[in-house]
Amino acid sequence: MEKMMDRCGLFGMFDNNGFHTSHLIYYGLFSMQHRGMEAAGICVNDNQGNFSYVKDEGLVTEVFDEMKLEKLQGHAGIGHILRYDGSDARENAQPIVIRYTSGHMAVALNGGLTNIEEIRHDLELKGSVFQTMEAAEVISVLISRARNNYPTIEEAIASIMPMLKGGYAMLVMTPRKVIGVRDPQGIRPLVLGREDHSWFLSSETCAFDELNVDYVRDIQPGEIVVINAEGPHSIQGMPAQPIRACIYEYIYYSHPASVFGGQEVYKARYNMGCHLAKEAPADADAVVWVPDSGLAAAAGYADTLGIPMVDAFVKNKYYGNNLVKPEGILFDRKIHMKLSVIKSQVKDKNIVVVDDSMVRGTTAQTLVELLRHAGAKSVHLRIASATISHPCYYGASMPEEKKLIFHEQGVDAVCKMTGADSLAFLSSEGMVAACPDAAGGFCMACFNGDYPTK
Amino acid sequence: MEKMMDRCGLFGMFDNNGFHTSHLIYYGLFSMQHRGMEAAGICVNDNQGNFSYVKDEGLVTEVFDEMKLEKLQGHAGIGHILRYDGSDARENAQPIVIRYTSGHMAVALNGGLTNIEEIRHDLELKGSVFQTMEAAEVISVLISRARNNYPTIEEAIASIMPMLKGGYAMLVMTPRKVIGVRDPQGIRPLVLGREDHSWFLSSETCAFDELNVDYVRDIQPGEIVVINAEGPHSIQGMPAQPIRACIYEYIYYSHPASVFGGQEVYKARYNMGCHLAKEAPADADAVVWVPDSGLAAAAGYADTLGIPMVDAFVKNKYYGNNLVKPEGILFDRKIHMKLSVIKSQVKDKNIVVVDDSMVRGTTAQTLVELLRHAGAKSVHLRIASATISHPCYYGASMPEEKKLIFHEQGVDAVCKMTGADSLAFLSSEGMVAACPDAAGGFCMACFNGDYPTK
Amino acid sequence: MEKMMDRCGLFGMFDNNGFHTSHLIYYGLFSMQHRGMEAAGICVNDNQGNFSYVKDEGLVTEVFDEMKLEKLQGHAGIGHILRYDGSDARENAQPIVIRYTSGHMAVALNGGLTNIEEIRHDLELKGSVFQTMEAAEVISVLISRARNNYPTIEEAIASIMPMLKGGYAMLVMTPRKVIGVRDPQGIRPLVLGREDHSWFLSSETCAFDELNVDYVRDIQPGEIVVINAEGPHSIQGMPAQPIRACIYEYIYYSHPASVFGGQEVYKARYNMGCHLAKEAPADADAVVWVPDSGLAAAAGYADTLGIPMVDAFVKNKYYGNNLVKPEGILFDRKIHMKLSVIKSQVKDKNIVVVDDSMVRGTTAQTLVELLRHAGAKSVHLRIASATISHPCYYGASMPEEKKLIFHEQGVDAVCKMTGADSLAFLSSEGMVAACPDAAGGFCMACFNGDYPTK
Amino acid sequence: MEKMMDRCGLFGMFDNNGFHTSHLIYYGLFSMQHRGMEAAGICVNDNQGNFSYVKDEGLVTEVFDEMKLEKLQGHAGIGHILRYDGSDARENAQPIVIRYTSGHMAVALNGGLTNIEEIRHDLELKGSVFQTMEAAEVISVLISRARNNYPTIEEAIASIMPMLKGGYAMLVMTPRKVIGVRDPQGIRPLVLGREDHSWFLSSETCAFDELNVDYVRDIQPGEIVVINAEGPHSIQGMPAQPIRACIYEYIYYSHPASVFGGQEVYKARYNMGCHLAKEAPADADAVVWVPDSGLAAAAGYADTLGIPMVDAFVKNKYYGNNLVKPEGILFDRKIHMKLSVIKSQVKDKNIVVVDDSMVRGTTAQTLVELLRHAGAKSVHLRIASATISHPCYYGASMPEEKKLIFHEQGVDAVCKMTGADSLAFLSSEGMVAACPDAAGGFCMACFNGDYPTK
Repeated sequence: MEKMMDRCGLFGMFDNNGFHTSHLIYYGLFSMQHRGMEAAGICVNDNQGNFSYVKDEGLVTEVFDEMKLEKLQGHAGIGHILRYDGSDARENAQPIVIRYTSGHMAVALNGGLTNIEEIRHDLELKGSVFQTMEAAEVISVLISRARNNYPTIEEAIASIMPMLKGGYAMLVMTPRKVIGVRDPQGIRPLVLGREDHSWFLSSETCAFDELNVDYVRDIQPGEIVVINAEGPHSIQGMPAQPIRACIYEYIYYSHPASVFGGQEVYKARYNMGCHLAKEAPADADAVVWVPDSGLAAAAGYADTLGIPMVDAFVKNKYYGNNLVKPEGILFDRKIHMKLSVIKSQVKDKNIVVVDDSMVRGTTAQTLVELLRHAGAKSVHLRIASATISHPCYYGASMPEEKKLIFHEQGVDAVCKMTGADSLAFLSSEGMVAACPDAAGGFCMACFNGDYPTK
Repeated sequence: MEKMMDRCGLFGMFDNNGFHTSHLIYYGLFSMQHRGMEAAGICVNDNQGNFSYVKDEGLVTEVFDEMKLEKLQGHAGIGHILRYDGSDARENAQPIVIRYTSGHMAVALNGGLTNIEEIRHDLELKGSVFQTMEAAEVISVLISRARNNYPTIEEAIASIMPMLKGGYAMLVMTPRKVIGVRDPQGIRPLVLGREDHSWFLSSETCAFDELNVDYVRDIQPGEIVVINAEGPHSIQGMPAQPIRACIYEYIYYSHPASVFGGQEVYKARYNMGCHLAKEAPADADAVVWVPDSGLAAAAGYADTLGIPMVDAFVKNKYYGNNLVKPEGILFDRKIHMKLSVIKSQVKDKNIVVVDDSMVRGTTAQTLVELLRHAGAKSVHLRIASATISHPCYYGASMPEEKKLIFHEQGVDAVCKMTGADSLAFLSSEGMVAACPDAAGGFCMACFNGDYPTK
Repeated sequence: MEKMMDRCGLFGMFDNNGFHTSHLIYYGLFSMQHRGMEAAGICVNDNQGNFSYVKDEGLVTEVFDEMKLEKLQGHAGIGHILRYDGSDARENAQPIVIRYTSGHMAVALNGGLTNIEEIRHDLELKGSVFQTMEAAEVISVLISRARNNYPTIEEAIASIMPMLKGGYAMLVMTPRKVIGVRDPQGIRPLVLGREDHSWFLSSETCAFDELNVDYVRDIQPGEIVVINAEGPHSIQGMPAQPIRACIYEYIYYSHPASVFGGQEVYKARYNMGCHLAKEAPADADAVVWVPDSGLAAAAGYADTLGIPMVDAFVKNKYYGNNLVKPEGILFDRKIHMKLSVIKSQVKDKNIVVVDDSMVRGTTAQTLVELLRHAGAKSVHLRIASATISHPCYYGASMPEEKKLIFHEQGVDAVCKMTGADSLAFLSSEGMVAACPDAAGGFCMACFNGDYPTK
Repeated sequence: MEKMMDRCGLFGMFDNNGFHTSHLIYYGLFSMQHRGMEAAGICVNDNQGNFSYVKDEGLVTEVFDEMKLEKLQGHAGIGHILRYDGSDARENAQPIVIRYTSGHMAVALNGGLTNIEEIRHDLELKGSVFQTMEAAEVISVLISRARNNYPTIEEAIASIMPMLKGGYAMLVMTPRKVIGVRDPQGIRPLVLGREDHSWFLSSETCAFDELNVDYVRDIQPGEIVVINAEGPHSIQGMPAQPIRACIYEYIYYSHPASVFGGQEVYKARYNMGCHLAKEAPADADAVVWVPDSGLAAAAGYADTLGIPMVDAFVKNKYYGNNLVKPEGILFDRKIHMKLSVIKSQVKDKNIVVVDDSMVRGTTAQTLVELLRHAGAKSVHLRIASATISHPCYYGASMPEEKKLIFHEQGVDAVCKMTGADSLAFLSSEGMVAACPDAAGGFCMACFNGDYPTK
């Protein structure tokens, strides 16, 4: 699908054994690179409460090298990868690292707060100044201000949680602790892992798989988990509300091998394809999947209808930002470079293309064009999620409401725009039914406008 | 499969219309980046017979940027991407550009000559000196020396072809011509394309697809095709022998969408999977394919036996050379980073993994390990080509004979090394049968030692 | 002399005419590069009160290029170059840019505050957090907190000036103003320039010379000059105290062509050489100067005594940080690389070397060694300033007290260490007498411990 | 003076003791960086006759780093720095390294051959091809072709020397030798140095000074010095003709501390100033020198006439290629950035500016403009060499004849163009008289058209 809705990734650890903290966080972040490509940062605690950090714009592999990782020596640390739409990813890289009365504090945030501007303004009135656009900076000020009134940092965090409206997961590091926080409705994910006496916090379980760390459990809605030299313990930062996990993590954001709330992501995507097949079957000769996103849903769709799934698109794996873009006459030649088509797979066939989601429809348009050029008889588009009609305020960087194609257009108009012979989407009920193993409910606000917070 | 046998790529053109020569060659090379990652080069002719070029080590997108392409102005040009094992790809980047009595000449070569050292030594005795290890440099000297004795450059090329023992395709650019040459047995591929009055030569048809250039035909064994302002014409450089096209182009080297000699590569790979299924069926619950190489063969295998094909491996698309490598204790943690496994797809199942080829067996070993760690009940390896037992002297950079695993070991020993429950290969007959559309015979020397030249 | 005491540079402007703000600040900073090599930054105001900035570690020419300057569009702006000893110049680059209740504010500081830690701690108790080690960040918080209580920003600045103990010059930019502030004793310099309706603030007049801007006057001790669309006007931020200008600006920091308080720097240096000649004549055949610092003083010394001044040292102008350092056996070879000696100028002569100042004595040691190796009969060192015995708290990055060579050692011991035949320094009286045109007194605390503030 | 006539530098060594060959060559080249800034290269012999090399465009410190030097292990080696006017310094970097019947050979050249095109053409007719524009490549082919006919490489070199018309110094490295060659008239310099059992060849003695290597002697005109494990021995490659050393080495090219033929460069320059003072005195209040070139001549001029020499120009030492250039309105502001003027030194004075040479007159124009702007009453230009009226064919990259300002204009016209009140040059006789210690005659062809070769 169209690249547009990634969000941030978090990885933190407290190591009682060895000392490869920065390297392990590096690999943890790298395994979740799909959650954010704009910036990356790691902050470590040198055992003495002195924090050092490296953060910059770029991929994990661009921001860090062996020399930088070597310099980041410590037994505890937190890392962050940033998904950012603005022009200055570098200034907004996290973790935010501050000095205040109780020493150093580092904060990394995944998520969105609907009232961030109000909180920021309120703090400005109280004399605070801000150097970035990041909510994490605002939260660091809130916590530091609350700190003096509470015996522990976790109680200070609990005291400010009622102010934070939205969906978020957060890591906070202090001189003696690494702390994980999840919003009271569990909108954004956060999981706990363990290896002997070392403990880990991550946005996704796929990072644990890579490091051979055992997945222990999901952090609960409203929970504050505190890891120190004695291991983890928790307090309930806010009363847990019924869970409203972001369903988009299953549809698109997360790694297919990750598991949240008992539900494996790949399996959910496959199921979405199955339900889509039942809801919107197509009379086609072949099901085609879209690299890299739509494989699972296409398999479910194909298996359900008994239509053969074929490989038609080949992605050029060297495609990237440094490719010189075709312009002028070259642009008119329709040099796609990113995807090519294996003609024999589609020529003279009725094709159904299954993708995971649709935001602006431009990718779908290209797919249809490529298939028709390769000789497809007909092209039917099937999207394994519902139509996106509302903006997300909890951390997904979707376009403004006005720019969402389904804000003003119906499915028929969009189908016409893409050039497909038919277009259908999975229903909301189908999406939910595709995640039978997930405990609790979902946030599906971007599909139906039912926001879990005001 | 294990990365080890890429080979060079060629792209040339003579443009009677527009003037995007360097850009078009750039996109042509980029679409064949899989043929060589070590170096890239483009040389253009400015209409006046003055050649300018840029060549360096690195990917196409690393060697060139818009500014460099802009400087390479001309109506004709040739480009090259290099697969190189040595330490100094930069010094050996092609095209080789020389000045001699008849002005400039640029030479780019894909292939291997078994008697290159003898030719070089002979030329040294005649007073030539060499600055690279490239056969292309030797050939440029041969041609320039022959040039004075013949009225045309193509006749000079024809005169030296009998000296060249091996398999090769070659581009030669002179002040007024772009010339393509294919060895008399057609071991290495070369195809001709056209768009209006512009003509193109390429190693693969996939480059034509990208540029919306029409594929005209394969260059014939021993043919010298000369493109100038009047368009292409040919002479027979050497008598054509029965074709012996490299079967490895079908098995692994080429882009799946490419077509050689009438046979589409993807279809050949799929057929190899079908034949493999018949020759070596496995009693398994699921067929697993290996990114990125084994998809086609796995599909053929699964379809033939009616076993469901599942997605089990997920490749981290950000994996690359700049990843900090896990060392010491981190290495022992078996941090793979490149591939991860979707556990639900393989847990408690009997798995058959289909890959396209096996050179050293180390990749297979990792695959088996990953699947067993994810809970597979049994793991059967099926390779959709025969065992490689002989070195290639025609341009494939395979290990020396002694390092080929099947030089000393049998299939059983290798199976044990990989940790698989069973291991089987496709027969030579199966490989040939999988390419029914290909006109003529194949070079399968690396499988059976039957070399087309001495 | 030994590189060690540079300090920061400031350049700001408010342009009512054209729009080359970022370029002009760039050239202004570049002309004062000698004041700080660690980092550089420019922040501009886009006419609408929106600030954009670029800052990073490195030289002015490394931090900025045409593209970055083009992006910094605005009619007003301030720039800063940083002299920094710590390990992370990048995090401490200025200007500090913040958002607070009244919009954006940018602050750039040259100088040192003796009570910065107390102020910071006090602000932390009030809920502020800090992300850098820079006093400029602390000051930005002070001003923003005071802002609500005063009708204008300049009054807010005036209200916090009594809290700032030390020597400083400062630029503050707000959505409608560019403001210059100088400490009440005028320890650090700040000058005002004009070109038609555009107004400029700079640490040194040499920047005005480069830009063909007219030098108007020095900002007065305690003065706050406010430049807006109507031009400049001033308020007295604090009552002016008797001026105590840093004499080290004349000795070493400033560009020789700069003028402060009516006194040209070059002339002051020349005079110091004259006074030194009278106080400590040497019976020598030739006066040798040290690139690049000691030319003026050596000329004064030579002229006063009638000894010929000769060129003996030649600096390798390509010498820089990226030179591979000689190590091991190569180090023992005494490969200096930076300076070479013209032997004929010193062989068999009695030489007097005049340098501007001495901090650790290591440079002097090298100079003596080079001259003796070249055949000098005797080598006399004359330093055109007094012995440094006290640390500077006002912005000069000198070593701690203990590391100053004259903290524990007398002149004789240092002379012995350098290997010179004799060593003498200019008296404090001589330094003052060398600046007859400067209005007011000097801070000479690093020479005599008489600090203007507590 | 105007930068335009640098030329190449050579440094080679044969080490019987230690193994810092590449490092020592690196420092040797670095100390002669003024001879060429476009490219640098080092080739070493690993004791076994295998050559490895690194060469690229850029300064010595840009081309090499510790890692690259470490890889260049060997007991013997030669290095080169290139002065190049063309667009592709990289392709023309030296040494040229070739393989031929007798193994490896590396060649580095400083100088120019008037008949290089004829030789190249002749070799092309014999079947040679060329990949660069460098004469060194042509010479490597000549030597390799001659090699078979002579028992030793030095005899082969001697056999081709009569073919080489022009001025040159050359280093040749073979598997067992490092060889230095100087043209039969000694136009280009080459000197021999020693440290214990290690022997060195260099373009200038300043490199020996830096490395604490003892200067032994100049290589004689026509001499071939061969250094191998037994030390150096010589043969006379061609009969020595009367020496015609390039006088421009004394005027501008060489390091002031270097000595050729017994004459120190600094002293020669000082003497030129003295003679100039006698030939063309100026009634001035002060003599001003031009950084970095004119110091010595200005001192001689001032001393002779008893006029005080003052420092008026200050060069911005951070000035370089990466400075964003002032364009448009900024250009019209006359932002020089490179040089600034100390006004008090020139205001209301009659100034005489002494520079070493004048090629196009543009620098002089800028100097006059700067001085007048700073308030000089009058400005007299004195050039410590004669007017350049003929092109150099022996390695100096001067403009074509037509572009030399004195080709068509007289001194008066040029004086007017520069805006000076008067302009005078040193006579040819004065230049010669300024080098009394130099044995033999000079090539002064660029001044008088008397070329030593046809």
